[in-house]
Formats: sequence, C-alpha cells, structure tokens
Amino acid sequence: MAALARSVLVTGSNRGIGLELVRQLAASPRPPQHIFATCRDPEGPRGKALKELAAQHASIKLVQLDTVNLPSIRGAVGAVGSHLKDQGLNLLINNAGVSSHATLRSVDPQEMLAVFATNVVGPLQVTKEFLPLLEQAAKGTGKEGLSCGRAAAINISTKLASLGLCLGVPEAPMYPYRASKAAQNMVTRCLAAELQDKGILCVAIHPGWVKTDMGTEKAPLTVEQSVRGILTVLASLSQDASGAFLDWEGNCLPW
Amino acid sequence: MAALARSVLVTGSNRGIGLELVRQLAASPRPPQHIFATCRDPEGPRGKALKELAAQHASIKLVQLDTVNLPSIRGAVGAVGSHLKDQGLNLLINNAGVSSHATLRSVDPQEMLAVFATNVVGPLQVTKEFLPLLEQAAKGTGKEGLSCGRAAAINISTKLASLGLCLGVPEAPMYPYRASKAAQNMVTRCLAAELQDKGILCVAIHPGWVKTDMGTEKAPLTVEQSVRGILTVLASLSQDASGAFLDWEGNCLPW
Repeated sequence: MAALARSVLVTGSNRGIGLELVRQLAASPRPPQHIFATCRDPEGPRGKALKELAAQHASIKLVQLDTVNLPSIRGAVGAVGSHLKDQGLNLLINNAGVSSHATLRSVDPQEMLAVFATNVVGPLQVTKEFLPLLEQAAKGTGKEGLSCGRAAAINISTKLASLGLCLGVPEAPMYPYRASKAAQNMVTRCLAAELQDKGILCVAIHPGWVKTDMGTEKAPLTVEQSVRGILTVLASLSQDASGAFLDWEGNCLPW
Repeated sequence: MAALARSVLVTGSNRGIGLELVRQLAASPRPPQHIFATCRDPEGPRGKALKELAAQHASIKLVQLDTVNLPSIRGAVGAVGSHLKDQGLNLLINNAGVSSHATLRSVDPQEMLAVFATNVVGPLQVTKEFLPLLEQAAKGTGKEGLSCGRAAAINISTKLASLGLCLGVPEAPMYPYRASKAAQNMVTRCLAAELQDKGILCVAIHPGWVKTDMGTEKAPLTVEQSVRGILTVLASLSQDASGAFLDWEGNCLPW
C-alpha cells in the first residue's frame, strides 16, 4: 500500500483525534516522509504526549501553530516550507477546534464569537496561508485528478453540523458549537468549489462520537477506531468527493 | 383577511427589506396593532425614511435596538414590553444583517468575526431576550398549533446559505457572508427544535435577490415584490413549517 501522502500537517495534534492521527500516520507501514504535528504550545505541559511521540519517529516534526493567530500561522508556513523545500504540502488536516455546550439559556455572545474564531475563521485562515504550499504540491506530484496524495485540505467536522439531521437531536442544544460547525462546512464547500480546478481536494469529515476530552467517556467510539476509519477514508478519496461531508466510515451525511 | 399578527417587531427596519416590511404591514387592510420598527439609530440621518413613515401611522413605534449590543437589546425588550402590557409579542422578524463580499484572497479574520456577530450572534441574542414576550404571546392568544399570529421568530436568511446549492454558485465566493448565514440557519433550526413545544414557530426565509443597498441594482426582484411574497408566506405558515428554510414564494430550499 502506498503512503497516504508524502507530507501531512495536522493542527491541534497534541491530544485527542489530532494526536492519534499523528500516531497512526507515523506508525503506518509506509509513513509519510514529513508529518508536521502542530499545536499552540508544543513545548508546554499540554504538548508532553506529542513530544514523547515525536521522539520515537524521525518523520514527526513539531511546529508551533495557533490557528487563531495570523503571525503564528505564517511562522508555521515558513517552518513547514523550509522543510519541504520545493515539493509543497500534500495534505492539510484542520483538526484544531473547540467544543461548547452552551444552551439557549447559557449562551454568551463573547464565548460564541470565540468558538467561531477557532472553528471557522481558524481553519479558513490556515488553509488560505498554506495554499501556496498546497498549490505547489498539486502541480508537483505529476498526478491527475484529486486525492490526498496530491493535494488536499480536510476539515474535521461533526454530525452535529448537519442542518438536515438537526431536528433529530434536541438533546444536544450546543448552539455555538453547531452553528460554528455548520459555518465551517460552508467554508469547506466554498473552498472545494474554488480549489478543485487547482488540483486541491476539500472535504469535511465527521470523526464519529469519540472518547476524547471533547467527546467525553460516554462516547461509543475509541479514538483509535475513529482515526483508523478516517485514514482509510482519506486514502480512498478522489475527484467525486470534492466538497463532500463524510463520516469516518465514508458514509455521506446530509447538510 | 385577519391581521398577520397583533404585534410585530422588525430589526434593521430603517432601510431595504426591513423598511418595506414595516411599510407594507402598516398599509395593510388589517394592520397589526403594534409594529415595532427597530434600528440602531432611529434619530440619526439613516433613520430618516423610517421616521417619516412612522409619522404617517400610529401603529408604528420606533425603538432603538442595536442587535450586537446586549444592553440595547434589553432596553428594547423593556420598551416593547411596556407597550404590549401583558399580551406578549407575536411576531419577531430578525431582519438586521450585513453582507460581505470577501473572497478567499481578501477575507480578514476581524471582518469575518464582525459578520458573525451581526448575522448569527445578534439574531440569537435578540430571540433569547425577547423569548419571555414570545412565550407570553404563545400562551395568551388562545390559539393552538404554530403560526405567526400566535408566536414566531422569523430569521431572514439567504439562498447563499444553502450548503446543498453552494457548488452551483462559484461566482459568488462571499466566504464570511455564506458561512455566517449557514450558521444562522443552524440557529433557526435549533431554536425551532427547542421552542416548538412552547408554541413558538421558527423559520428561515430567503427573500430572493432583491434590489437593495445589499442586493445592488443588478438584482431581479424589487423590494416591494419580495416583501409582498414574504408577508404572504408568513400568513400561511403553520406547524409543519417549524424549522423550515423557505423562499419568498414559499418554496422549500435545500440546507
């Protein structure tokens, strides 16, 4: 089996799904040559598990990246670009995000805007700033069509972003989280429409309800199962997945 | 024909669709008893046309309401409540909003957050703060089922918020506007799920592409045509429209 991609970048990779993505990518039989594991503070106490993982794999490069801080994003683009030389970045996984359990009663304007900043503006800015590296990869691989091995921006979304399914889940009000993730899906959709002609695939992926800090212990899925599914789906994506909303098993979700 | 509702509040009513909603409501054969025409600065130069209209109709009450300013919203709730005595507010129309033509290239994080504040957080906060008055109306009208004559929160949306239609309109990138309106649709959807058991109808309405400051002169529809359609649709809404996304002709739009 070929490597998923020559180079991969994962945001928010110090814990949960992000950390497991880096772990499984590094441990795969044909790992990517470069795995850029990014988070806000790789040197701080919350980066400890990632740092230990990176110490075991030469493919993993730790990169500081705060997705809501433009100078930080640009610093990361510079660091990643100097590693890649002129080969570009194949696969960008926008995984960093925050949850919010705010209800109609508890919702606060400032908290809601902070959720939008992290879950919508962040992934859009990260994709925008890494676009030259993605375009370089799209041109340089000698591949046709769209795939994660050529150039892709994958946004980690959630089933709770589905407007079509929404009425079925009144038990999870989560207004700011849901609204931000519906907005993020629109960003994915717009990016897909704009970037497909440049050879860049954009897809939204629902990782399932996963036992992480965000998903809590009540979740039915382990992070290992979810990430194994996500990586299998990513490897299978082609042209017709441009702008799709898929779950970790590859099922299409309603908008 | 019965009045659409005994009391109606329209945000952003100093121009465009908001002003025309107030104009047509006041001029209808059976006008609402109370039309609360709200905007940020009813006494300023941008409130001139509304003030002139209000001078011609005793039913129109001008109320200061800045939808991104919580003290302003609460002040408006107090003013409206004292007019209504104990009868509650039947129909809240969240019309205030901003456009943004930002492309992927031009999008700016701060501008994007400002668009979210006005188009998503604003309507949610307004609905939340007016909820006691809507609940009072829902209980007090003696009506069953859901309708604008009983109690309703209508969010003015846009076809550009449709994720399903999105790939068909690459000519209108408008990332912040589209993302904010998709998020607003999710807010409508969550409100509908939460409030229908309290007798409050929540619906998202696409007004069409209208010749306004926002829609520009290129738009095919006059504001008179659009608002006539919207008011006809609002009068027809019942239980089964809860959480729907309809256009000004009553057609269902895909999420």
